[in-house]
Amino acid sequence: MALKTFPLASVLPAERWLTAPAQLAAYESDGLTAYRERPLAVAVPESEDEVIALVCACRDAGVPMVARGSGTSLSGGSLPVAGGIVIALNRLNRILRLDPEDRTAVVQPGVINSQVTAAAAPHGLHYAPDPSSQTICTLGGNVAFNSGGAHCLKYGMTSNHVLGLKAVLGTGEVVRWGGAGRERVGPDWCGLFTGHEGLFGIALEITLQLLPRPECFHTVLAGYRTLEQAGDAVGAVIAAGLLPGAMEIMDALALEAARAAVHAEYPPGCAAVLIVELEGPRETVAAERIRLDAVLSAGDPVAVRSARDTTERLAIWKGRKSAFSAVGRLSPDFIVQDGVVPRRRLGEALRRIAELSRESGLRIANVFHAGDGNLHPLILFDGRQPGALARAEAVAAEILRLCVAMGGSITGEHGIGVEKRDFLGDLFSPDEVEIQRRIRRAFDPGELCNPGKMFPGAGAPALSRPGLHPLEASGTLSRM
Amino acid sequence: MALKTFPLASVLPAERWLTAPAQLAAYESDGLTAYRERPLAVAVPESEDEVIALVCACRDAGVPMVARGSGTSLSGGSLPVAGGIVIALNRLNRILRLDPEDRTAVVQPGVINSQVTAAAAPHGLHYAPDPSSQTICTLGGNVAFNSGGAHCLKYGMTSNHVLGLKAVLGTGEVVRWGGAGRERVGPDWCGLFTGHEGLFGIALEITLQLLPRPECFHTVLAGYRTLEQAGDAVGAVIAAGLLPGAMEIMDALALEAARAAVHAEYPPGCAAVLIVELEGPRETVAAERIRLDAVLSAGDPVAVRSARDTTERLAIWKGRKSAFSAVGRLSPDFIVQDGVVPRRRLGEALRRIAELSRESGLRIANVFHAGDGNLHPLILFDGRQPGALARAEAVAAEILRLCVAMGGSITGEHGIGVEKRDFLGDLFSPDEVEIQRRIRRAFDPGELCNPGKMFPGAGAPALSRPGLHPLEASGTLSRM
Repeated sequence: MALKTFPLASVLPAERWLTAPAQLAAYESDGLTAYRERPLAVAVPESEDEVIALVCACRDAGVPMVARGSGTSLSGGSLPVAGGIVIALNRLNRILRLDPEDRTAVVQPGVINSQVTAAAAPHGLHYAPDPSSQTICTLGGNVAFNSGGAHCLKYGMTSNHVLGLKAVLGTGEVVRWGGAGRERVGPDWCGLFTGHEGLFGIALEITLQLLPRPECFHTVLAGYRTLEQAGDAVGAVIAAGLLPGAMEIMDALALEAARAAVHAEYPPGCAAVLIVELEGPRETVAAERIRLDAVLSAGDPVAVRSARDTTERLAIWKGRKSAFSAVGRLSPDFIVQDGVVPRRRLGEALRRIAELSRESGLRIANVFHAGDGNLHPLILFDGRQPGALARAEAVAAEILRLCVAMGGSITGEHGIGVEKRDFLGDLFSPDEVEIQRRIRRAFDPGELCNPGKMFPGAGAPALSRPGLHPLEASGTLSRM
Repeated sequence: MALKTFPLASVLPAERWLTAPAQLAAYESDGLTAYRERPLAVAVPESEDEVIALVCACRDAGVPMVARGSGTSLSGGSLPVAGGIVIALNRLNRILRLDPEDRTAVVQPGVINSQVTAAAAPHGLHYAPDPSSQTICTLGGNVAFNSGGAHCLKYGMTSNHVLGLKAVLGTGEVVRWGGAGRERVGPDWCGLFTGHEGLFGIALEITLQLLPRPECFHTVLAGYRTLEQAGDAVGAVIAAGLLPGAMEIMDALALEAARAAVHAEYPPGCAAVLIVELEGPRETVAAERIRLDAVLSAGDPVAVRSARDTTERLAIWKGRKSAFSAVGRLSPDFIVQDGVVPRRRLGEALRRIAELSRESGLRIANVFHAGDGNLHPLILFDGRQPGALARAEAVAAEILRLCVAMGGSITGEHGIGVEKRDFLGDLFSPDEVEIQRRIRRAFDPGELCNPGKMFPGAGAPALSRPGLHPLEASGTLSRM
């Protein structure tokens, strides 16, 4: 594309428009690697005013726009749109204010999740939502997709921690909603924007709640002979009235991967481990720990190990948080699924997933937020084999249908994006989807903000339209 | 009005239309007693289908409609509209489901707040939000106004406890949002509806989160020589890392009222009391109690009393929860204001309110959710004196401006309603208000649902348009 004929060109200096194929290559895909699309250009704004000017120019020229932070979306939420631009927000990466007394931080959308906790740590504070990608993902993306994480069992999702937002809507209008206070006036406008998947506009400033860093942690790893025993232990912990900071399960295949990748050590002879982390004031944790020990012992574990110090605690978490990428050592490709079942039906769901694995001949690793009933089956396949991706996607779709049938949800924390837009109709009636679109159009009448995401009906069904698989692409970066 | 010529008459059997002046009288006002309006008629539906039919009929006939539960709104949120109908939801009063394992209850909008806890108690569960009116107010109203309560310091507002909603929109469309699970798909539609002040439609079924009833409570009443000392103690408790279930302050005038009304006993010689309630597992409370004692002792209280048993605990709460109505013993009339300041500016706000009291010559009692910075000044006046209401309203307005200037909010939990609609512009720009109206019209294009509430510009400024004061009305129930 010749930059000088590009209608938006004047909005930014030429050096902050990326248009060369080699430059665009980095933006063609996101965490959902099976999909790929080349944008017209990538804009690299450096200020709020430039973002607002870009949105207004796109609105006027009818050009689709996709805001992007680090591109870690696992649902294709930051996948570019053909004929549209990507607005890369990485240079809006400043923590604008951090108020230890009010326990708030005001950040730009390109700030990395873990940087907030790093900045808050000297004040004894932290930012609670901790997606596994927290060292690279941005807060703008966390807000757009209402990201979760292991500790959301106790602390809730991103939406529970966003106190205020300044955003530019698709109309070009700039709004300020909420603020440093916890009280709201009228409807929860911030909550409406948190989880909008980029369809309403772009967050410019985000006011986050910070929480006191727990005084101490008690992290336990319990090994079980069966996955079901681990699942049952989760129910027992909750039934005992404990609310741990996190409760995570890894199955045998995930353990194998973590052992291979980061030399994590797990008790021999166990087919699943449950990680439980208590946190809070010292006396509270000391008291809860006695209760937890009793509950876990009653569940006939192979072994129960407590982290004796921070090093051992971090080792347990390193194994857990590396599990997704570690699975890459077991298989050239995998799909990360994200579904929710009511916690009490966890055992049943895991049995059905094991059956689907046997029926399809595809290995499935399970690493998941057990306390929330938020499953993350990793479906292993070899993309070089013709039809393998389609078979894996069919299993992934089957798992989602299973979640819906059990009274759960099609996403716990990754969002709808491109990947699951054709499943929205499993949760909402056509009328309800139309009402949601109507609200979207109130913010973005031209439907130019991240089009093709969330709502069904945009092209062929997402999961059966694999796009150009990266391995099948043989290294070329051609357009779909 | 002749019922037979009434366009909506056929929607309900004649006996469930109230049209006689004596019947309408009970619906002319709500908790904001200074305002009064006679509706055309009151509809008494008995089923969801009848509510939906009423909304559709109003939409078709262009008749304004105001949904009403117990009419306890303190902001005039359920005030009728001239020429419109009231939809009284009191007969939709069933708890449809209560699932102790999932810890959820599905209720109709006319269910009384405290009935949910009563129904959940045998399972060791409770519904956390506890407005002072909890024994009479309905969940439909709690949802519409995102009600708070003393224990919202720890548990959050109504919106933090609404997991799902079935609602009829102003368009007549029926939506189901959320569900029993805690995860969300996309934007927080339930959060958008919670706090809508009746402007989007009417909730038909509400799925509530239930929480385990705390294993034990530790309730402390500390008396101080000055209101500021009590305010400082609040900051000290939070700074010590404690998160009590509730922290409430009553000033000297409020103590006088509670003594007179319910024979509450307070330490002699104190000008303010702070109530702090710890709650949780036995060992946790035991540990936190030691910390709390140390923090409170350091603040030089006149006396610190701990409730030794449930009777003493309930006596402390009886004094607090009766304070609003108890103030009625000190003055023929009063205005309850509801504003928020950042917690750390509490002392400053209280000093300014004391100055306003001196300047205006009006007594002001303070009973408030100190932990949240949520002030509830009660401005005492005698409505029989000409101009007294206007003077009290001027002070109330000044307090709101003070809250906004301090970086707070114009409402903590009572909502905007009629009372504060002209202050919305102090928090939002005209563009932002217009965007909110646009969303409202997406749900209710005719603006027939609870018109005149929340948004400014509907007639004269609310606080300077006192309407017909009940005492000035001399017992007549004439139309305004």
